[in-house]
Amino acid sequence: MRLRHKPWAKDYLDEHAGIVVKEPQTKKGNWAGVFRNDNPIHVEVGTGKGQFVVGMSLANPDINYIGIEHFDSIIVSAVEKVVDSDIPMNLRLIRANGKDLTEIFSEGEVSRVYLNFSDPWPKTRHAKRRLTHEEFLTLYKKVMPEDGEIHFKTDNRGLFEYSLVSMSEYGMRLLDVSLDLHAEMPEGNVMTEYEEKFSAKGQPIYRLEANYLNEA
Amino acid sequence: MRLRHKPWAKDYLDEHAGIVVKEPQTKKGNWAGVFRNDNPIHVEVGTGKGQFVVGMSLANPDINYIGIEHFDSIIVSAVEKVVDSDIPMNLRLIRANGKDLTEIFSEGEVSRVYLNFSDPWPKTRHAKRRLTHEEFLTLYKKVMPEDGEIHFKTDNRGLFEYSLVSMSEYGMRLLDVSLDLHAEMPEGNVMTEYEEKFSAKGQPIYRLEANYLNEA
Ligand SMILES: C[S@@+](CC[C@H](N)C(=O)[O-])C[C@H]1O[C@@H](n2cnc3c(N)ncnc32)[C@H](O)[C@@H]1O
Ligand SMILES: C[S@@+](CC[C@H](N)C(=O)[O-])C[C@H]1O[C@@H](n2cnc3c(N)ncnc32)[C@H](O)[C@@H]1O
Repeated sequence: MRLRHKPWAKDYLDEHAGIVVKEPQTKKGNWAGVFRNDNPIHVEVGTGKGQFVVGMSLANPDINYIGIEHFDSIIVSAVEKVVDSDIPMNLRLIRANGKDLTEIFSEGEVSRVYLNFSDPWPKTRHAKRRLTHEEFLTLYKKVMPEDGEIHFKTDNRGLFEYSLVSMSEYGMRLLDVSLDLHAEMPEGNVMTEYEEKFSAKGQPIYRLEANYLNEA
Repeated sequence: MRLRHKPWAKDYLDEHAGIVVKEPQTKKGNWAGVFRNDNPIHVEVGTGKGQFVVGMSLANPDINYIGIEHFDSIIVSAVEKVVDSDIPMNLRLIRANGKDLTEIFSEGEVSRVYLNFSDPWPKTRHAKRRLTHEEFLTLYKKVMPEDGEIHFKTDNRGLFEYSLVSMSEYGMRLLDVSLDLHAEMPEGNVMTEYEEKFSAKGQPIYRLEANYLNEA
């Protein structure tokens, strides 16, 4: 994702405090209060410009969506998208690092985590930054109930191979795997920005669903 | 695999009893005796015309290989391949169905199972015939030690997707996954007949290694 310096970004985010939740740590354990209902909360880590969470929140009004993105300059584009359409009641954005997930959500507060086209960090010495590294899997587990699911899409073969092994080593269970999502596009698939770009180039899109239940 | 009727196949196999083990059930628990050494035994289920087991047995003299194939008419081609070259001391073939694995091998007698380009059986009602169906995973487990590994290659996306989920549901652990084996051909990869055919067409070859150890 290209980073343009946007000196006005911080002010812009502050002005849209309805959609960009300030000091999200103060909402920990009380996200139902923020949304004013008890609907399940699905979180996307690494939301980028927001096409996926916006599309999902419009398509599924009975689910609450939260997009987390750590760059001001990028999340601004997500806010613009929301402001341009009607602001869905069931969508919020957070400017934060996924590392801080357990400071933002209490145990079991999140029912599903979405990871879409996460940065691949191909060098082994950066493996810890991959959003499917053991340390992140531990964080997701802490904020989800036992049957909470991770849904992960990417065009990056190396990251997907790594993630299958990482999740398996962690003792997670694969519920569904597609090695060419667009070959038989499942109903209800909402495309992300990166997904549009890479699938247009004819690259296969990989996808998996997994949870932490181990029946073995 | 095309089946030609070969009325002479049975006689031909009988004549090559040195390489095609007759009544393999009688060797159960005594395969070390057949090979006259205690080297690890690696079994390929669905050997076809034998290029893989022949290549592996020549490349790895300290491992004993057994190729299992259930069609007379196909295993004949494997025998011909062996007879044409020097018969490797560390290779045997068995005409049998993989279903009978536990009648042929005792507990822990096999250290590794290879599955290469197994028939995909795409219809759900035939799922039980897939060599990575739960029932087959149970059989492999019975003849291997806890850390025994399954190494599986295929060009078939549907079968590979199914196998990842099937093994994961079974509680198995993925040790390694490649979603395009020939993109970075690992050293020592021995190609099967099907692998040559499908990779020449530019199709990705999928590969995984898994075992039954669950550290979670
Ligand atoms: C390659 S982009 C993909 C964006 C979007 N999900 C899509 O599919 O189009 C990855 C995004 O994840 C964000 N990101 C990466 N690591 C993150 C982390 N630890 N916490 C929050 N955001 C992160 C990056 O800033 C970037 O915007
Ligand atoms: C598609 S061919 C692949 C042959 C070879 N492994 C290769 O990669 O070139 C699959 C082979 O597995 C054999 N086979 C399938 N199911 C089997 C079973 N249950 N037991 C033994 N052989 C089986 C078939 O007869 C066929 O020869």
